[in-house]
Amino acid sequence: MSRVSRRTLLTGGLGLTGLGVGAAAAGVGLAREDAQPEPSTLPFFGVHQSGIVTPMQTHASFIGLDLLDRSDHDALRGILRMWSQDAANLTQGKAGFSDTEPELASTPARLSVAVGLGRGAFTSPALAGRRPSWLRPLPAFAIDRLEERWGQTDVVVHVASDDPMTLAHAVRAITAPVRRRTRLRWVQQGFHHGRNLFGQVDGTVQPADDRHDDLVWDDGSEQGWMAGGTSLVLRRIAMNMDTWEALDRHGRELSTGRTLDNGAPLTGSNEHDQPVFTATRGGIPVIPESSHIARAHQRSDREQFLRRPYNYDVPPDSGLIFAAYQRDPVVQYVPVQQRLSDADALNEWTTPIGSAVYAMLPGAREYLGETLFGDGG
Amino acid sequence: MSRVSRRTLLTGGLGLTGLGVGAAAAGVGLAREDAQPEPSTLPFFGVHQSGIVTPMQTHASFIGLDLLDRSDHDALRGILRMWSQDAANLTQGKAGFSDTEPELASTPARLSVAVGLGRGAFTSPALAGRRPSWLRPLPAFAIDRLEERWGQTDVVVHVASDDPMTLAHAVRAITAPVRRRTRLRWVQQGFHHGRNLFGQVDGTVQPADDRHDDLVWDDGSEQGWMAGGTSLVLRRIAMNMDTWEALDRHGRELSTGRTLDNGAPLTGSNEHDQPVFTATRGGIPVIPESSHIARAHQRSDREQFLRRPYNYDVPPDSGLIFAAYQRDPVVQYVPVQQRLSDADALNEWTTPIGSAVYAMLPGAREYLGETLFGDGG
Repeated sequence: MSRVSRRTLLTGGLGLTGLGVGAAAAGVGLAREDAQPEPSTLPFFGVHQSGIVTPMQTHASFIGLDLLDRSDHDALRGILRMWSQDAANLTQGKAGFSDTEPELASTPARLSVAVGLGRGAFTSPALAGRRPSWLRPLPAFAIDRLEERWGQTDVVVHVASDDPMTLAHAVRAITAPVRRRTRLRWVQQGFHHGRNLFGQVDGTVQPADDRHDDLVWDDGSEQGWMAGGTSLVLRRIAMNMDTWEALDRHGRELSTGRTLDNGAPLTGSNEHDQPVFTATRGGIPVIPESSHIARAHQRSDREQFLRRPYNYDVPPDSGLIFAAYQRDPVVQYVPVQQRLSDADALNEWTTPIGSAVYAMLPGAREYLGETLFGDGG
Repeated sequence: MSRVSRRTLLTGGLGLTGLGVGAAAAGVGLAREDAQPEPSTLPFFGVHQSGIVTPMQTHASFIGLDLLDRSDHDALRGILRMWSQDAANLTQGKAGFSDTEPELASTPARLSVAVGLGRGAFTSPALAGRRPSWLRPLPAFAIDRLEERWGQTDVVVHVASDDPMTLAHAVRAITAPVRRRTRLRWVQQGFHHGRNLFGQVDGTVQPADDRHDDLVWDDGSEQGWMAGGTSLVLRRIAMNMDTWEALDRHGRELSTGRTLDNGAPLTGSNEHDQPVFTATRGGIPVIPESSHIARAHQRSDREQFLRRPYNYDVPPDSGLIFAAYQRDPVVQYVPVQQRLSDADALNEWTTPIGSAVYAMLPGAREYLGETLFGDGG
């Protein structure tokens, strides 16, 4: 397939995935092979926010903000209205409302802006009853060495684009106008590649495309206003390159359970082959029980979630910004993370240093958060 | 021109520019319009180092290192030999010598690795007499607010690629093996766009392609070993987005002397039109005398140098990593910088916080620095 027709194909699929209809798993594969900036746009308005099941863009920033006055839910609504107005323009290649560098907005390159709320955003009496029950701190995992500077915030904005300048401009547009109302806690910048900095193929296992409505998107059964939203678990995982590189190649493959060259499970030959955990060689499991994929593999139908890994490289620190999206993190994500904490071989070289949970808002008809502030949706 | 044939054209030109024959000014234009990752490779061996007159890659890191023992010039030679061996492989898409993530090396995306030496690298008796006379601190400029953390180092490595993962991998390959011999002072990460974060078209004025041998490359007349090398002035310039954006659009154009939409001088209509500094309207200069282009404009033939601006965005800090290459910084760069320091209107919104000067080594036949350690070349 020529580069041009491939681009056309990818572009054709984007509107659909932005609305949650498209194929995330297929999209990941495309993004990996065809990583150059895309001239196309993602929808801002829709049932779901773009940037979640969307094929991953090359560059992303997660912005963590605290509200200066948590009790002022009108201020929060004002922020969300303003962001919606700007994002509706910027994602379509138009200048933001108070944009003084409109030329930097002209190449959206699949820009997406998605907003989520942390537990602290539900402090006001008007909103306290609307907090999803799963929106609470994750259990303390034994492997965690969490640093306050990468911790939970009241609000998160996930901005992503194939163009680093477009991303920088959008991050500025998001953060600058809200400084009287919020405190910027952190910006986590990352890039997507298909491999992480350990050289491992990453993000292979994903829910099937036709399970998004079931596994990713909230149906509003607990909190009506959340219908079309989802949850985000955001983990910052430091990776110790020195000790990892001291390990021989076979040892590195055993710790993951996959080959390094193409990410195939050690019992298979292609990335998407199903691992066979019962296979043995000379009485020894081919995929060690303590390997990452053996521990991470779903043990029930609910233990599935969307994996969106971004690499960060801020010398001398590097690692992974691991974003997991699922309808209910307590039921879907936590059991897997608990098993990894208990005995993942990779723990020797990785350290979670940041952790946060957010309710990612439903898509906007008029503005993000409209159902939260409306009659319950 | 179709995207594919354009790519072929660009690729065809790269081998030439890597050897210093090609068209840097034309190359800048191409890089601006056609910014997606390139599958192609740049030569490592040659008369000049790649990555200097090469059309700018999208992503770059400048790595500043100090030598732990400046008197040990054998250690420096060993470092340069090792880097040469790794860079010769990595730039061609092959694994580095001790590369434990060879899969991350497979897409060079125009990777270049260029090495320069600061004044401190010439401390040993054997090298003291080989220091170029211009390799000394820049004069203190009144506008400078230099921070030690972005200051002069003994060695710099400029790594650039269109792929952020390739870049991260190469930076790791450069820094990890030398930690017993060097101290990592800083890594300055940037991206190239054609505009800076103020929205200004940047890097317009460049020496003509046929003047590189005269204006950029050292001919060895002072230090024989430097033939084929050049000098790098590396300035880190913080940009105050808040106060800049408070200025109206006309004020911003007057401060630069160019339009914001396409970078044309205020007396012209296209980016590369020659500014007419004598033009007046109602008795007032169309391009103010204090504007950036009026102050930066060359007042003699020697006041020309190659501009290689990269944007940095480390919220809440953003600005420009300004790399200037010229045969002699004292004669070519300093007079221009002095005029800018004296009265550039842009100074109100920009602050130099880092400054360093390096002798960029000639290209390698066998290894970088071979003429420095040899018989004088």
